[in-house]
Amino acid sequence: MGDKAEKTKERILEEAYDLFAQKGFKDVTMSEICKRTGLSRGGLYRYYTGTEEIFSEILSKTYPLTGRMDKKESAAKILEEMLSTLQEEIMDRERSLSLAIYEYASLGNEGFFQILLKKAKKRWMDLMVYGMEQKEFKKVDPDMVSDMILYYYQGLRMWSRVTPLERKAAEHYGRMVREMLLEE
Amino acid sequence: MGDKAEKTKERILEEAYDLFAQKGFKDVTMSEICKRTGLSRGGLYRYYTGTEEIFSEILSKTYPLTGRMDKKESAAKILEEMLSTLQEEIMDRERSLSLAIYEYASLGNEGFFQILLKKAKKRWMDLMVYGMEQKEFKKVDPDMVSDMILYYYQGLRMWSRVTPLERKAAEHYGRMVREMLLEE
Repeated sequence: MGDKAEKTKERILEEAYDLFAQKGFKDVTMSEICKRTGLSRGGLYRYYTGTEEIFSEILSKTYPLTGRMDKKESAAKILEEMLSTLQEEIMDRERSLSLAIYEYASLGNEGFFQILLKKAKKRWMDLMVYGMEQKEFKKVDPDMVSDMILYYYQGLRMWSRVTPLERKAAEHYGRMVREMLLEE
Repeated sequence: MGDKAEKTKERILEEAYDLFAQKGFKDVTMSEICKRTGLSRGGLYRYYTGTEEIFSEILSKTYPLTGRMDKKESAAKILEEMLSTLQEEIMDRERSLSLAIYEYASLGNEGFFQILLKKAKKRWMDLMVYGMEQKEFKKVDPDMVSDMILYYYQGLRMWSRVTPLERKAAEHYGRMVREMLLEE
């Protein structure tokens, strides 16, 4: 795919993200995405078959990790960057996709989320194993700690949509994960 | 209020809980609650002014705690009981109120949830301070640890509705909280 096509896809995902965060999944239409991106109907359908495909691509986007471990970057540094991204996301209640996730799941996409959760968990577990090998992280049970990291984040993300959170709530999240993994 | 009235209220809350878990908040009507409880419209309105009042009463119900601390019961025992209740709830996806909570919040009840969160947090912090005074719990930062306990639970509760969780996920929750609070 050429550069221009990549950029168009990027723009579609960006605009669709805002719409899903605002309205949930069900109420977002391809026409709206056309309007927001300035694409014609034909132009949009050249890239995506429907809102399902767009939404699932948004959720599947992840922070690049494997390459950095291959290059033997510091596990603590990777962790810091991931946490600072997550903490920003937690406070950014306008961009929470929790409602859209709910709606998308209730349309029979349970299997999709099962795979998504597994992948997210594997990424955290890989980072922990790597950090322990590098002697940067404490000896922890990666299976248990990755569950905590994932669901604790999801809980914050959901509640940030329900009611405004204090910044302290996001800070506690980062501090808890650091205390679990890093030597003092 | 007499015994019979108490029982009727109990039944209303039970039946309404099932409806909210199934359908969210917006789509549940007082007529449905009449049908499920066998009460007449007048009978139901004698107890509650509407679904808002019923829902907020359901969410405000809490595990009794203060009395047990006054009686100097073991903090570890209270913790075990709370965790076993929470773990059951996590696995009971049919009874997750997360969607209803979302909808209720989006109707302008943010303040209600702010108070609810504060109360829930205070209960956990009180238990931690008590457990530390009794020398049963490790020295922790109650402010941070109570956030973890609350939001981690909410994340599990939300995802149990999105996709079936393994029992291990609920077990990890209990184990994490125990490891944070109890000496080995």
